Amino acid sequence: MELDALVNAVMKNIFVELEASGRHVHVTAQQALSLFGHKLTPERELSQPGQFVAKERVTVIGPKGKFENVAVLGPERPEAQVEISLTDGRTLGITPPVRLSGDVAGTPGVVLEGSAGKVELRQGVMAAQRHIHMNSRDAAAMGVKDKQQVRLQTYTDRPVIFDGVMVRIHPSFQTSVHLDYDEANACGFRKGDLGRILP
Amino acid sequence: MELDALVNAVMKNIFVELEASGRHVHVTAQQALSLFGHKLTPERELSQPGQFVAKERVTVIGPKGKFENVAVLGPERPEAQVEISLTDGRTLGITPPVRLSGDVAGTPGVVLEGSAGKVELRQGVMAAQRHIHMNSRDAAAMGVKDKQQVRLQTYTDRPVIFDGVMVRIHPSFQTSVHLDYDEANACGFRKGDLGRILP
Repeated sequence: MELDALVNAVMKNIFVELEASGRHVHVTAQQALSLFGHKLTPERELSQPGQFVAKERVTVIGPKGKFENVAVLGPERPEAQVEISLTDGRTLGITPPVRLSGDVAGTPGVVLEGSAGKVELRQGVMAAQRHIHMNSRDAAAMGVKDKQQVRLQTYTDRPVIFDGVMVRIHPSFQTSVHLDYDEANACGFRKGDLGRILP
Repeated sequence: MELDALVNAVMKNIFVELEASGRHVHVTAQQALSLFGHKLTPERELSQPGQFVAKERVTVIGPKGKFENVAVLGPERPEAQVEISLTDGRTLGITPPVRLSGDVAGTPGVVLEGSAGKVELRQGVMAAQRHIHMNSRDAAAMGVKDKQQVRLQTYTDRPVIFDGVMVRIHPSFQTSVHLDYDEANACGFRKGDLGRILP
């Protein structure tokens, strides 16, 4: 028992859990009204405290294709953001730049359609830069700083080392690596797989 | 001029060109007859000598979805093979194992539909293991052997190091790295990008 606890403690200081983020949308309170006629309704909590998947879904409509039934994450934000993979971009006919969440200036637009109406976004489409959410304790244990870019080795079916993984630290974050589905599939990710920050 | 030639020679011994392979199908001569009523017709040569993209196209039909207008590569082979990405697999409702080209034993099947008929494959669906086609001269210069697995650094928008890249050597190969679209998008590949085999 003591050995197990020790092993777990050591593991937590060495490895980080990997998560794959599917395509999803963030909207403003005003846009939620236009799309659904009301505020977002929480359906399921996400691993990051306070974040949730809404019951409401949207269709994301690009010049060449569309995706129906796309997840909307809440709570509402000051600016809309549509996070897709580069593969998704090919389907929609949009080339999303790789950006950090929130850095929407100059990104392409897209049309969203909800149960109550359509919203045309002037900007907001991006492929999220791979990143690690980390709480302050884990960050201290692993010796990394906020906005530091690290290299991450995946222990997956098709192992890769991802360069340029951005560390985001917040006291309440649950420590995990966020990959998009291109990245998750490129490394053969399966739920529960781990990664390690390389020195 | 001499400096350029020298730089090019050095570059060729250090860097390898990256290529992204889209989903595609190889069929037997008998299957070509069933699907199209005739042999495959070359439309465009591929980078590997003798290989071509056929004029003929197929629909690949899985339990959950299908892809229309999928490329068929020639010449015909002794066994059919359907190379898709793991992302494609989710769309089709098939989980392709990661395999070396030709290693089809025990892989899932799928239905192909051509202009003249349908063929049900009992096996052949895979995600191709990332690999480097290399001619003997380049292999000697880079000090690698056939079937050796190497690590490859990409010089791309989202740099990664791919582990387990299989080297395939043939005197007539044009040296290039073959990635699938999950891998190409995960590293932000653009045409002309280079990689380097790590020691």
